Amino acid sequence: MPKFFIAGTNIRGGMAIMKGRDAEHVRVLRLRPGDDVILCDGEGTDYKCHIVLADRDEVQAEVVEIVPCKAEPSVSVTLLCGLPKGNEKTEYIIQKGVEAGASEICFFHSTYCVAKADEPEKKLERWQRIAEEAAKQSGRGIIPSVFWTGELADVFNVVLKKDLGLFMYEAGERESLNSVLESSRSIRSAAIVTGPEGGFAPFEADLARAVGMHVCSMGERILRCETAPIVALSALMYTTGNLS
Amino acid sequence: MPKFFIAGTNIRGGMAIMKGRDAEHVRVLRLRPGDDVILCDGEGTDYKCHIVLADRDEVQAEVVEIVPCKAEPSVSVTLLCGLPKGNEKTEYIIQKGVEAGASEICFFHSTYCVAKADEPEKKLERWQRIAEEAAKQSGRGIIPSVFWTGELADVFNVVLKKDLGLFMYEAGERESLNSVLESSRSIRSAAIVTGPEGGFAPFEADLARAVGMHVCSMGERILRCETAPIVALSALMYTTGNLS
Repeated sequence: MPKFFIAGTNIRGGMAIMKGRDAEHVRVLRLRPGDDVILCDGEGTDYKCHIVLADRDEVQAEVVEIVPCKAEPSVSVTLLCGLPKGNEKTEYIIQKGVEAGASEICFFHSTYCVAKADEPEKKLERWQRIAEEAAKQSGRGIIPSVFWTGELADVFNVVLKKDLGLFMYEAGERESLNSVLESSRSIRSAAIVTGPEGGFAPFEADLARAVGMHVCSMGERILRCETAPIVALSALMYTTGNLS
Repeated sequence: MPKFFIAGTNIRGGMAIMKGRDAEHVRVLRLRPGDDVILCDGEGTDYKCHIVLADRDEVQAEVVEIVPCKAEPSVSVTLLCGLPKGNEKTEYIIQKGVEAGASEICFFHSTYCVAKADEPEKKLERWQRIAEEAAKQSGRGIIPSVFWTGELADVFNVVLKKDLGLFMYEAGERESLNSVLESSRSIRSAAIVTGPEGGFAPFEADLARAVGMHVCSMGERILRCETAPIVALSALMYTTGNLS
């Protein structure tokens, strides 16, 4: 069933009103009166609705059932990734991260970044739209936020608020991902930090250790910067029972 | 250290000889006498070498150390995926599948495929090259094979030879991925079957059950056809201790 996110205030008295971009999307999908859609308030509640009017500018739908969205994982995961070079990789992390269950996706600049971090704020609107599309498509109950945190020090400030912090690093002394995750099955929030193409500098891994993060290995295969966050997120979702 | 795959016969008497495309690749990477490379025989053995001659057509390197390639997972996983519409998704599955540790990647045609399966054999050469590039880049010890199996019945013939068969399905009665994987930690081989954009028809899931596959859910989030195999593979690699 097609899914849309709408502001909660557009549902009143058992009727949902869709306008603007959402009404246009209904038209593109050729939905007509009689068809069913799911409207999500973006806070974890789904409204199953029956379209009664589908005009160019406005769609009206009758609320048939209100249910909690089952697709939201029990753990809120923030992916924090060194900004990759090239929009394609960045957008890939956003799309696949949202599908795989991330609640927030953040990019930052670190020592070995080859991407220029000139005005990444300008890209946020596009990144957020990709997150919304992926959330619709995968049936999420929220629209994950995409944001930019400048430097690695700001990343650590985000990480400090979470139950678990994983810092993926390719060299040196590291904990096994399995041993860290096995003892973290009941966490409610987590941060996964992955590097840009060039990985992290040793002092960056030392900093991560200093703020209490688990510096982890994902085995001997070298994962691309856009693959590592999705593989790590999948393992975390699996181990916390959110892939079943 | 840059990695290349070469036929085992090109290493003789402590010297490795690279020609053709590999010699060209050495030139593109601007490697010179004195630089080190890893040459892999594609059967799990790495030869650490020191370049002594780098001509346009031939590169000679002295073998310094012979070591088993640590990047090969303990379980040989075959990904079998309904052919997606669009080369991008197909190539994405190959690249990310190889990075994440798949040993074979196979595409097939099933009821809900929207992609036309006209002469997919013609694409095999390109697909295999993508697998080789990904194997080099991620430091694999083998070049995973990419193949085409026609129909779903042929897929089941591949699956029957494996220790574990997972069939990812979006509806109906399914086992939890966690419960299946928890009891499969010591498997040596596995097959993961995922559908095309439209998923599988109910009778296809029934067939999978009939041949003894585990028909599994990956939770309530709807994964794209190119995302599902990577997420499932990551969970399998994690649970068999191949992500640490």
